[in-house]
Amino acid sequence: MSALPTSQLFDPSDPVFRVHVGGKLGVHATSQLRDAADLSLLYTPGVARVSLAIAADPTLAAIYTSRRNTVAVVSDGTAVLGLGDVGPLAAMPVMEGKAVLFKHFADVDAVPVCMQTGSVDEIVDAVSRIAPTYGGINLEDISAPRCFEIERRLQEQLDIPVFHDDQHGTAIVALAALLNAVQVVDKDLAELTVVVSGAGAAGVAVSRILLAAGVRDVVVVDSRGVLGPDRDDLAPHKEELRQVTNPRGVTGDLGDALSGADVLIGVSGGTVAERDLLRMAPRAVIFALANPDPEVHPVVAARFAEVVATGRSDFPNQINNVLAFPGIFRGALDSGARRVTEEMKLAAARAIAGLVDKPTADCVVPSVFDERVAPTVAAAVSALVPDGDRPTTT
Amino acid sequence: MSALPTSQLFDPSDPVFRVHVGGKLGVHATSQLRDAADLSLLYTPGVARVSLAIAADPTLAAIYTSRRNTVAVVSDGTAVLGLGDVGPLAAMPVMEGKAVLFKHFADVDAVPVCMQTGSVDEIVDAVSRIAPTYGGINLEDISAPRCFEIERRLQEQLDIPVFHDDQHGTAIVALAALLNAVQVVDKDLAELTVVVSGAGAAGVAVSRILLAAGVRDVVVVDSRGVLGPDRDDLAPHKEELRQVTNPRGVTGDLGDALSGADVLIGVSGGTVAERDLLRMAPRAVIFALANPDPEVHPVVAARFAEVVATGRSDFPNQINNVLAFPGIFRGALDSGARRVTEEMKLAAARAIAGLVDKPTADCVVPSVFDERVAPTVAAAVSALVPDGDRPTTT
Repeated sequence: MSALPTSQLFDPSDPVFRVHVGGKLGVHATSQLRDAADLSLLYTPGVARVSLAIAADPTLAAIYTSRRNTVAVVSDGTAVLGLGDVGPLAAMPVMEGKAVLFKHFADVDAVPVCMQTGSVDEIVDAVSRIAPTYGGINLEDISAPRCFEIERRLQEQLDIPVFHDDQHGTAIVALAALLNAVQVVDKDLAELTVVVSGAGAAGVAVSRILLAAGVRDVVVVDSRGVLGPDRDDLAPHKEELRQVTNPRGVTGDLGDALSGADVLIGVSGGTVAERDLLRMAPRAVIFALANPDPEVHPVVAARFAEVVATGRSDFPNQINNVLAFPGIFRGALDSGARRVTEEMKLAAARAIAGLVDKPTADCVVPSVFDERVAPTVAAAVSALVPDGDRPTTT
Repeated sequence: MSALPTSQLFDPSDPVFRVHVGGKLGVHATSQLRDAADLSLLYTPGVARVSLAIAADPTLAAIYTSRRNTVAVVSDGTAVLGLGDVGPLAAMPVMEGKAVLFKHFADVDAVPVCMQTGSVDEIVDAVSRIAPTYGGINLEDISAPRCFEIERRLQEQLDIPVFHDDQHGTAIVALAALLNAVQVVDKDLAELTVVVSGAGAAGVAVSRILLAAGVRDVVVVDSRGVLGPDRDDLAPHKEELRQVTNPRGVTGDLGDALSGADVLIGVSGGTVAERDLLRMAPRAVIFALANPDPEVHPVVAARFAEVVATGRSDFPNQINNVLAFPGIFRGALDSGARRVTEEMKLAAARAIAGLVDKPTADCVVPSVFDERVAPTVAAAVSALVPDGDRPTTT
C-alpha cells in the first residue's frame, strides 16, 4: 500500500473511524438468562453434567460447545494488508473486519486472536495451546516465509482445519477467475504461459494451485527477477517453488518473463511497466491483485489484455478472498473436516467459477455480495470430507 | 462435587443438554454490512487507515478495537468447578457460561480461551502472547498452587487486569457476606475468630482479604489439619499463608480450630462433622461454599449458626462470584485500570454488602439477579483507578 499523508491517518470525524469506535464485534448468549432456573442450566450446577459428559467423550464437544462454529482469526501483525509489520494491536481492526465477513457471509462465529510475534516455535506453541477452543484456525497477515512453516506445523499438530488465507484464499479465487478468463480468451489451461509476479505468501500459493489445476508453464518473478536456473540467492521456499515451475528455464526480469505470456498474475505490490506488458501474447489476461493499488491500473491494463481483474470493488472482476474463506470454513465446520485439502481448494475454485453462467471479459467471478457463493463453496468442500470425520448429530 | 451416576451424565433429551447444543455463545457485528460502501469502511481499503493510526499511536486501540470491551476467560481445565482436571474441551461449557454471565450482568464481551495445560512457564507464555487481543484476563479453574504463580507473573508482565476469579471473586463475595453477617450477630470484625477450611485458590484468597479487611484471627485448615506451628509439610503457598494467619498458634484438626470460633468459611469441598460444629461460639456464622454440595447442609448448619450461607440458589444467602466479577471487569474496562488492586477488591466487597439495606440472617448478600450490583461494583472499582490510567474518549 502506498504511504498515506499524515492528515489522512487519523481523523475521528471520518466515517471510517466513526464506524470503528468500540470495535466491530460483540458477543452474545444464544439462550435467554431470565431467572435462577436458566442460570442453573447455563451455568452451575447444570453445566457440570455437560463438562463431565465431554470429559468422558471428547467428541461431544463438537455438539455441546461453541467450538463447532467458532474460528480463530490468528495474526501476529507482521504482514498486515500491505502495511507490513504493524504489530498485534494495529492488526486488530483487520482481524475484526475479517470476523465480520465470516459472520455475514457464512454465519461463522469468528474471533480475532492477535498475538505478540515471536519465533516460529513460539507462534506454533501458542496457537496449538489455545486450539481446543476453536473449530478452525484462519491464519492471517503473518509474514513470509514464517507463514509457510507455521501453517505446515500447525496442520501437522492439530486435528482442525488450519488455513492461511493470504495464501489459499487468494489462490482459490485467482484460479476461479482464471478458469473463466480462459473461456473468454478461448485458450486451454494446459497450454497457457502464466507469469506470477511475487513470491510471497500469495505468489507461492497461486503458483501451486495453478499447477495443481493443470497449468504447466508457470514462471515466478520476485523483486530480483525470474526464479530461474541462474538464481543462487533463493530462500528455501523460493527454491522449492523454482523446482516445480519455469519448465522453459526462463531467466531475466519481469519483462523477459512476460515475453509471449498469456497471463500475468500480480501479487507483489510492485508496479509493472507498460513496455513489459507490451511483450505479452495476444488475448492476454492480467490479474493485478495488489490492494488498494494494483500493480498496473486496470485502465492501463485493458490496453494490453482482454480480461483484467483487480482486488478493487470499483472496477469489474473483483478478486477478493471473501469469495472463498467463509464458504471454505462453513463447509469444513459443518462436515467435521480435519484439514482443508488440495482437492477441497480446487473444488472451491471450480465452485466459484461455476457460479458465473456465461463468463465475459467483465465478469469472470461472481460479485462478493452474491449470496450463492458461500453455500456453494461450503457444499463443494463438504462433499470431499471423508465420512469418518463427520460429526455425530443430535 | 460428588460423583454422578453414569445415567445422569449424558442424556441428550435433558434440558441441560438441549440448551447446550451448538454452544451458548455467538459473535455478531456491531455495524451493518449492506453493500460495497460498508465493506470499504469495515474492511479494505478503509480499515488500513485505522490500522495505521493505531500503529502510530497504540493507545487508539482502546477506542477503535473490540479490545476495550473484551475479556478472555482463560482456563486449562485442570480444576473445573469441583470436577478436577477434566481438560480444556470439558472446560468449554463452564467458560462459555461465564461469558454468558459477563454479558448478561455487565455487557462485557467475554470469550472462552481453553488451552492445553502445561508448565507455569508455558501457560504464562501463551496468555501473554495473545493478551493484545483483550482488555482483561479472567483466569478460571486453574489448579492450585500453579494458579498463584500464573496470576502473579501475568500481572507483572501485562498492562491489563488479570484476575483469578476462583480466588478473588469468591473472596470478595465472602467478605461482603461477612461484613453484613457480623452486623446480624452483633460482633466486631476485629474481634472475630474465623476458621477457613480449605487452603486452595479460594482458601488463600479468602484468608488474605479477611486480613486486609481487618480480621485479626484467621485459622486455616487443610486436609491434614490446621496450618499451625507444628506443620512441616507445607507447600510454599501454604507456608506463606501460615506466616500471616493463626496468631494463637492453634494446632490439631478442624474441630480444634472450630473450638470457640465465630465464623467457619468452607471452601474445601470436604464435609464438616456436626461434633466439630458443636464447638463453635454462640451466634456463629457458617459459610459452606462448596458447590453443588456444601461442606455442611444448610439445614444442618442452621442448628449451629445464626447466619448460614452457601453457593446454592435454593437456599438464602447465595454466595456466588457473579456478584463480583462482572462489575469488577466492567469498572476496570471503563476506567482503563491496569490491574485490580487490593483496594479495589475491598471496595467491591463493601459495595456489594452496602446494597443490603438491613442485613438479616436470611439476607446478607443481594440476589444474584439484583441489577444494581454490577454497576455499583463497577463504580467502586472505577473510583480507585489513577487518573493517568484512564483512557482518552472520543
